[in-house]
Amino acid sequence: MSDIRDLGVRAAELDARDELAGLRKQFVLDTVSDHAADAAGVYLDGNSLGALPANVSGQVEDVVRRQWGELRIRSWDESGWWTAPERIGDRIAPLVGAAPGQIVVGDSTSVNVFKAVVAAVRMAHSADGGAGRDEILVDATTFPTDGYIAASAARMTGCALRPVTPAQVPAALNDRTAAVLLNHVDYRTGRLHDLPALTAAVHAAGSYVVWDLCHSAGALPVGLDEHGVDLAVGCTYKYLNGGPGAPAYLYVRSDLQDRFDSPLPGWNSHAEPFGMRGDFEPAAGALRGRVGTPDILSMLALEAALEVWDGVSIEAVRAKSLALTDFFLECVGAYVGEGRVESVTPVAHAERGSQVALRCEGAGEVMKALIERGVVGDFRHPDVLRFGFTPLYVGFADVERAARVLGEVLAQVPGEVLEEGLPEGAA
Amino acid sequence: MSDIRDLGVRAAELDARDELAGLRKQFVLDTVSDHAADAAGVYLDGNSLGALPANVSGQVEDVVRRQWGELRIRSWDESGWWTAPERIGDRIAPLVGAAPGQIVVGDSTSVNVFKAVVAAVRMAHSADGGAGRDEILVDATTFPTDGYIAASAARMTGCALRPVTPAQVPAALNDRTAAVLLNHVDYRTGRLHDLPALTAAVHAAGSYVVWDLCHSAGALPVGLDEHGVDLAVGCTYKYLNGGPGAPAYLYVRSDLQDRFDSPLPGWNSHAEPFGMRGDFEPAAGALRGRVGTPDILSMLALEAALEVWDGVSIEAVRAKSLALTDFFLECVGAYVGEGRVESVTPVAHAERGSQVALRCEGAGEVMKALIERGVVGDFRHPDVLRFGFTPLYVGFADVERAARVLGEVLAQVPGEVLEEGLPEGAA
Repeated sequence: MSDIRDLGVRAAELDARDELAGLRKQFVLDTVSDHAADAAGVYLDGNSLGALPANVSGQVEDVVRRQWGELRIRSWDESGWWTAPERIGDRIAPLVGAAPGQIVVGDSTSVNVFKAVVAAVRMAHSADGGAGRDEILVDATTFPTDGYIAASAARMTGCALRPVTPAQVPAALNDRTAAVLLNHVDYRTGRLHDLPALTAAVHAAGSYVVWDLCHSAGALPVGLDEHGVDLAVGCTYKYLNGGPGAPAYLYVRSDLQDRFDSPLPGWNSHAEPFGMRGDFEPAAGALRGRVGTPDILSMLALEAALEVWDGVSIEAVRAKSLALTDFFLECVGAYVGEGRVESVTPVAHAERGSQVALRCEGAGEVMKALIERGVVGDFRHPDVLRFGFTPLYVGFADVERAARVLGEVLAQVPGEVLEEGLPEGAA
Repeated sequence: MSDIRDLGVRAAELDARDELAGLRKQFVLDTVSDHAADAAGVYLDGNSLGALPANVSGQVEDVVRRQWGELRIRSWDESGWWTAPERIGDRIAPLVGAAPGQIVVGDSTSVNVFKAVVAAVRMAHSADGGAGRDEILVDATTFPTDGYIAASAARMTGCALRPVTPAQVPAALNDRTAAVLLNHVDYRTGRLHDLPALTAAVHAAGSYVVWDLCHSAGALPVGLDEHGVDLAVGCTYKYLNGGPGAPAYLYVRSDLQDRFDSPLPGWNSHAEPFGMRGDFEPAAGALRGRVGTPDILSMLALEAALEVWDGVSIEAVRAKSLALTDFFLECVGAYVGEGRVESVTPVAHAERGSQVALRCEGAGEVMKALIERGVVGDFRHPDVLRFGFTPLYVGFADVERAARVLGEVLAQVPGEVLEEGLPEGAA
């Protein structure tokens, strides 16, 4: 067990050695200070809504006042509005290991899951011998919207939906599998799934895989191109700090783009959008994933937010992320009474995303008390305290303080010692 | 023919009598001045992108700096982010003649067309004897995206798509008609279709109608409830001035909401979105039309933009709109050489939206020359000059100047006199 007296010193040392520490000043955040604990805060909810990058306000003001207010309609060309979805997609691409020309930004994650899963099924059906593929596998532990949308995609493509845990996927794959929808990092437990191995297994079965990167993009290397992923979707308001409800993105691997047959063929995905033609001819490339008029205010806020990544290595982000979560687990072990919490996030680095989820009696009330003391995480039904660690702006002193305050809160709140582990299936 | 010397005087008189004239100062617009024609502009493209309401910048700044930057995740509750889609829907409702609780804001128009058409087909199929209804009628002259999306909806619901002109709809309806998608105002010609009569005809045939209000909402009374419309969609960046790519909206008549079966059942449309349940149980009411996380920056910019409508009667807007387009046609008749342009917008008030479309040889070049001289309309392929009249901020002096500059441009540009009318089908 760690010596509590040393943890604060250790945190300061780790912060001093942190090569990403300088990025924090690019975000709007309270200063962490033990002497003014009520005023300062520790923000560990960047896995739900990333903090505001400092340059976004100015960019949004320019978009509203000058681009919209003065140039008005001319901005579709002159301010680059029309090409924003693919331009910003190319800015996200290196963060998820994709070459340019494969990502477009727009719509919500849910809408992009629909496009991707339907398109994946159609790719399977259009392949030799694909007619008999009538099953979609979906991560049974997924964020619910993916499951709901996958069910709709199944219903509308004549498939059955089969929920399985990611671990069960290899055994569940067969020549009836049309498509597989998986989450890279589980939203609740923070478990990182094995994208390379699962992608290879899906391909070996002659099927297509859609990865949801909401909880991994911007926190760890994804390697979409390297691992031959077929399709992927993700949001931009978590580790990419694009702002509340910022547009999501869709990746379609370049050699599959000609076969990407969208269920939402809006005019923005037409080869000649201003031809106003009655017949639909899909655009070449990633543009085929576009649908309607892009949401410019949110999209250009995101574009500004992505500037913080200039020169940042995602490998360095990953290294810091693991150091932060390791240190948090160590501090929790030191500060929190025995048996009051149980981590449902894997200890193995290869299985851990950038969050720590602690099972805790009365988790909803505990999180309220933490937030009152300036430590902001979130509560996930039914009993999980979720803490997200955003390496761009979270430091080791934040981590130490969060664990310490958690210990104080639990010492004051009546609670039973946990007696049983979380069931395997719910993890 | 009007006396050209009088038109400027007439414009001034009409502006002096305009009860909506005071609203113009609520928008960011150049001052119209004959003495500084290069600096000032006449903006007649509000039917494509509405001008910036002056209060939007401040609201957006608050959303970015305080709500996102300081409150961060707490704003989902404390700043009313979570309920924005239905709250802003209720703000749009009176402008389209809808009681509260029937409209949600979010996604693009294209995505909402998909939701509405699929849901309409499912309503038809779930009705007694509905199984044989396998045809979707779509306005053959519609904005292309509606046709593309309707084709996808047909493909995914086992229907055939049958394009017809709105005039042909009554004769085309039969007991195979599952759903009908129509535009209230044609994007190109500005023709206003007869929503009450067409809605009644669709209902008489036992089918369901989806109206696209993109070019009518905010320009004229729609009367969704009064005329018993089933479903409707619309954008908010034209006459509602919500900003570039601002989120669209979906109307589902209250007594049909329990039967609204969305093809995009995202977690935001769940009865218990934070229950994170694996099974999908749709929310009651208009919320069922929501999908993913709402796009807050754009949505709250729209909310601010809608404040300009407080106390404004849509009937007064309609009266001024018709007076503006009447006056424009009169000025064009006086200023533009005989036979150089031909209006493809109906003369009859009952058939006219809030734009005037002029067929013109070399329309693309003519529009460029107009824009260089500060008169901003737009060009629609292949030969249409399109001028939109937004009664909240366009005045009669703008109208007179636009027609006068058009006459000057055409006098300087070589062009042939038009010899034949536009083919009926293309109108």
